Amino acid sequence: MDTAKPLILITNDDGVSAPGLRALIAVMAEIGDVLVVAPDKPQSGMGHAITTNSTLYLNKISKETDSIQEYSCSGTPVDCVKLAVNEILKRKPDLCVSGVNHGSNSSINVIYSGTMSAAVEAGIEGIPAIGFSLLDYDWNADFETMKPFIRKITLEVLENSLPKGVVLNVNFPKLTQENIKGIKICRQAKARWVEKFDKRQTPQGRDYYWLAGEFVNQDKGEDTDEWALGNGYISVVPVQFDLTAHYATQELNTWKWNE
Amino acid sequence: MDTAKPLILITNDDGVSAPGLRALIAVMAEIGDVLVVAPDKPQSGMGHAITTNSTLYLNKISKETDSIQEYSCSGTPVDCVKLAVNEILKRKPDLCVSGVNHGSNSSINVIYSGTMSAAVEAGIEGIPAIGFSLLDYDWNADFETMKPFIRKITLEVLENSLPKGVVLNVNFPKLTQENIKGIKICRQAKARWVEKFDKRQTPQGRDYYWLAGEFVNQDKGEDTDEWALGNGYISVVPVQFDLTAHYATQELNTWKWNE
Repeated sequence: MDTAKPLILITNDDGVSAPGLRALIAVMAEIGDVLVVAPDKPQSGMGHAITTNSTLYLNKISKETDSIQEYSCSGTPVDCVKLAVNEILKRKPDLCVSGVNHGSNSSINVIYSGTMSAAVEAGIEGIPAIGFSLLDYDWNADFETMKPFIRKITLEVLENSLPKGVVLNVNFPKLTQENIKGIKICRQAKARWVEKFDKRQTPQGRDYYWLAGEFVNQDKGEDTDEWALGNGYISVVPVQFDLTAHYATQELNTWKWNE
Repeated sequence: MDTAKPLILITNDDGVSAPGLRALIAVMAEIGDVLVVAPDKPQSGMGHAITTNSTLYLNKISKETDSIQEYSCSGTPVDCVKLAVNEILKRKPDLCVSGVNHGSNSSINVIYSGTMSAAVEAGIEGIPAIGFSLLDYDWNADFETMKPFIRKITLEVLENSLPKGVVLNVNFPKLTQENIKGIKICRQAKARWVEKFDKRQTPQGRDYYWLAGEFVNQDKGEDTDEWALGNGYISVVPVQFDLTAHYATQELNTWKWNE
């Protein structure tokens, strides 16, 4: 690979054949040398899962050009990043991008998201990272509109340095280009899923459940990702992997732990 | 169930038969009414994974007493919490405890941990939650030493109110009772796993990998969980699920996103 160009690792959680991944590859191939390592099957909702109790396989899919190499992996999105960095690449990539996810990873969804967990894993390894998601679950969603914005955001990250311990969670509203108002730095909205399990019976009469639910945004703030997306903006949330609630340590130190 | 006693939901990620779970049940049964919903197989390293592409099963295991009910679940630790709260329980539990995990969930391990993700899921649902882990991967580890401390920590949480948006990540050093110096509020140490994949071949000659690695603590701070555990303390880290890196928004707002 040409060392003058940035080396970009691409992964996702919808699997190697997802149109969202193809859109991301198309944009990144114009910016740098590309290594794709993506799950060989959909891995949505896998969060930060890793494969410790089972074996992992890598399959070289094709060698389209010298500047795009592609593998599928039997593991989770986080496994893909770990294998790419430790087994395939000879040097640390300059950037890791994950997605484009078919569906929202805004607000609390960041915690369940395989797409964002892959970006976080890269961040833990010291690689600048961005997760991209589109608020459209359709397999044939329109990813063309996003491309110039993905390019712009990627170039900003490559040009500047991301703050330490931070990866970006970028979500796109389902809008045409002329209706997108711009890019907005946001905080994660306080929202959650209210589950309504769909209880059914097997043909043999055994109960089983499908996880279903309704997304409820409790947060009226106008600085949140939910507000931005609902008002025509692309939301960018800086996400950290130091999970310490530093604001709580003072209060917790007033408790009688050792008495 | 007796409404005067607290209602406690218990789960883990090592599965319903793990000795660590049994130890936790023993302590909680002395404090309140207990509902156990734990995975029917080990789910270590599952992070915040949820089951969206497959069905979920619940199995009532036994009804030991009126005050202990027990189920196994085919899903992840987070699925267990969602099913318990939405399908089994008639009212919101007063507490959710997860573990005792066979092995450390200190530092960056919190992100990969099914045990801690179950506690975080409870936190998202507004339930006070604690994850307990012991720095001993042995299936037959000594959980007896921990019991009075688990009781103490649980009673403190029930008596006080946890700060908003916070769950506790509690790790125990592998020490005898007389060598434990006490309980310490800490922050998550900056540490990571340096992977060394173990590459092997199937009998048919196909390459495969086992995830392996070495834990590296880069953080010399004496306020970290790693320091506490290495110096004879039980570490308690307040963990948040607002992942926004609020400290980074000011800098990111100086970038040229919309120019």
